[in-house]
Amino acid sequence: MRAIAVIGTGLIGTSVALAASRRGVTVFLSDRDPLAARTAAALGAGRTRPPAVPVDLAVLAVPPSKVGAVLAEQQARGLAHCYTDVASVKVLPERTALSLAPDPSSYVGGHPMAGRERSGPLAARAELFEGRPWALTPSPFTSPTALRRARELAVLCGAVPVVTQSASHDEAVALTSHVPHLLASLMAARLSGGPAGATRFAGQGLRDVTRIAAGDPGLWGDILQANAPAVAGVVREVHADLSRLVAALDMLSGPDAGQRAGAMRTMVDLLDRGVAGLAGIRPGGPGGPGGPSGGSRVRVAVADRAGELPRLLSGAVRAGADAERVTVEDAGPGRLSVRFGVAPCLAGRLTAALVAEGWDARGENSVYAEAYEEGPVRPAVRT
Amino acid sequence: MRAIAVIGTGLIGTSVALAASRRGVTVFLSDRDPLAARTAAALGAGRTRPPAVPVDLAVLAVPPSKVGAVLAEQQARGLAHCYTDVASVKVLPERTALSLAPDPSSYVGGHPMAGRERSGPLAARAELFEGRPWALTPSPFTSPTALRRARELAVLCGAVPVVTQSASHDEAVALTSHVPHLLASLMAARLSGGPAGATRFAGQGLRDVTRIAAGDPGLWGDILQANAPAVAGVVREVHADLSRLVAALDMLSGPDAGQRAGAMRTMVDLLDRGVAGLAGIRPGGPGGPGGPSGGSRVRVAVADRAGELPRLLSGAVRAGADAERVTVEDAGPGRLSVRFGVAPCLAGRLTAALVAEGWDARGENSVYAEAYEEGPVRPAVRT
Repeated sequence: MRAIAVIGTGLIGTSVALAASRRGVTVFLSDRDPLAARTAAALGAGRTRPPAVPVDLAVLAVPPSKVGAVLAEQQARGLAHCYTDVASVKVLPERTALSLAPDPSSYVGGHPMAGRERSGPLAARAELFEGRPWALTPSPFTSPTALRRARELAVLCGAVPVVTQSASHDEAVALTSHVPHLLASLMAARLSGGPAGATRFAGQGLRDVTRIAAGDPGLWGDILQANAPAVAGVVREVHADLSRLVAALDMLSGPDAGQRAGAMRTMVDLLDRGVAGLAGIRPGGPGGPGGPSGGSRVRVAVADRAGELPRLLSGAVRAGADAERVTVEDAGPGRLSVRFGVAPCLAGRLTAALVAEGWDARGENSVYAEAYEEGPVRPAVRT
Repeated sequence: MRAIAVIGTGLIGTSVALAASRRGVTVFLSDRDPLAARTAAALGAGRTRPPAVPVDLAVLAVPPSKVGAVLAEQQARGLAHCYTDVASVKVLPERTALSLAPDPSSYVGGHPMAGRERSGPLAARAELFEGRPWALTPSPFTSPTALRRARELAVLCGAVPVVTQSASHDEAVALTSHVPHLLASLMAARLSGGPAGATRFAGQGLRDVTRIAAGDPGLWGDILQANAPAVAGVVREVHADLSRLVAALDMLSGPDAGQRAGAMRTMVDLLDRGVAGLAGIRPGGPGGPGGPSGGSRVRVAVADRAGELPRLLSGAVRAGADAERVTVEDAGPGRLSVRFGVAPCLAGRLTAALVAEGWDARGENSVYAEAYEEGPVRPAVRT
């Protein structure tokens, strides 16, 4: 790929342009706001004059509701041989492309799963997409060339292309992106009307839950409208859970002991389901930290004197152990047994490093065999 | 303060003990699970044998529903001269202290606003409380000595003591901690039942929104039960907003254009209220990045050639500018005007540093005067 055009030099468009420019691709920038395009150019994202001949691929980095019209307009002008977009919903752009665009075969929907709370070219980063999924949603009419070029762009940006259907994509992101955004906004909206001084007690938890609510309301309104049916499905389930929760909270402070016990079960059940739901999105994979995903264990005997444990833990972390996958067990008077959960490929190296530092360390059987006997591994020390 | 006792060596208790030990305080540790106390001791948090004479302050680091009983038991034994706790709710412990404890005057409620998703002594950090608010909630019976010692402990841990009433505290944390936890759990709970493969598209936003849902469901059930009335009040408001949202999402994909427009207003209004609610909890204070909180501006003229802007921005960040408070404006053909929002104390230094690097930089009037004339400052470049 030698030349691309980026239409819309906001956060995503400028980041794509920066990444492509760094890999030697010639990038032509444009934006309905000329200052935004000039700013992107001054950042080194490309040039602001239009291409003299059609480019290999045009990237439409405009809001979801604008993709179809911009695609039709640029295809009529002959801007590029192939076209893709970066909008957060895919059914609506596909539908408008099929109905409006002169050549639906040269278009493939795209959506890099990356973003920031900030918008505009100054927030752009060439590294924004590194290691992130980049959905590609070919329609039944998309040509192999269009799909290949969009895939090439994703790889060039360091992303991982994931080919799927537009409807599956929209259903998935309703769950993983659009509803989380709405819940963050619902929580943040409550902070204005709270009791005076309440936000003195705001901690990192509240900041994390509400961070994405800072996104541009206009753009997000557009995204949510375009994906309203899928979003409504998930929101309805959240609403049903929340209705049960309201009833449970009322009973919890009520006079009936039986109702209180039932309400407590409802609430702990929700909290349990939340913990279970996290397993699929945690870096450690199913089961999360301490779960059986790591495969191997290294066990070390230590005296329970002050200072021994920090010395062991810092040595183990230096040797590659994960500080979050450590459990301690009793090993008789004056002795503790410390167990590190590690990836199988690391177990030998960790054991050797600890023995070299004078620790009594040894590898253990795969956790899979043990889990079968004793159930899922849980931190041994809880209070 | 020379000696304290910590009852309950989980995350918070062990972190308090580590911080106090580092400041030379003698710490006596205990836990209903002796292994947890021995682990904390091996981490250097203190000693596991009981004190021979009453200590200055006992810290009850047990779940909210246990504070009253543990307080009564330890006062009867004469463990300490003064007592505090670290539970996340304050009305219930205060009420049980007043009704059960032999000496309510020696007790003051406490709550350090810090935590992690991990629990147990191995997750403890001496630095956990640094810069965090630490609520202290004296009852009408609390003695000045008890309040002074609890305050001393908070300061010794690097926290900021905030004296308030137990009821105000519980109302505030319902909003800033307990309801955020429930919303994180509601979102995370949906991830188990989602369409197959949906979590392939999980990004940082979803991880942030759901992070705190990993907390121990047993402990959180206890916290939510203890603060059920205040939590129910906030949850009911969220529920009302969510009901409106469900109706709006349904109309958005419906046939009536008038209803669609009304639904869009409902949704964008919620998103706008979310953005407004964040202003109070952002590091930049009211208005957030780009807002008028910083006070001064430095303006720099640059050619809009590729590379000029990154060179200026990196130089400015090295000189102390905030990369998030930059706007770009048109300054005629071939020229851009870059404006940095900075704290008044930094404006002179930033201007001098940029001029020394050869830039055409100058300070501007205080933003307060200008804001009066032109309204709140907003990023000039948006797409």
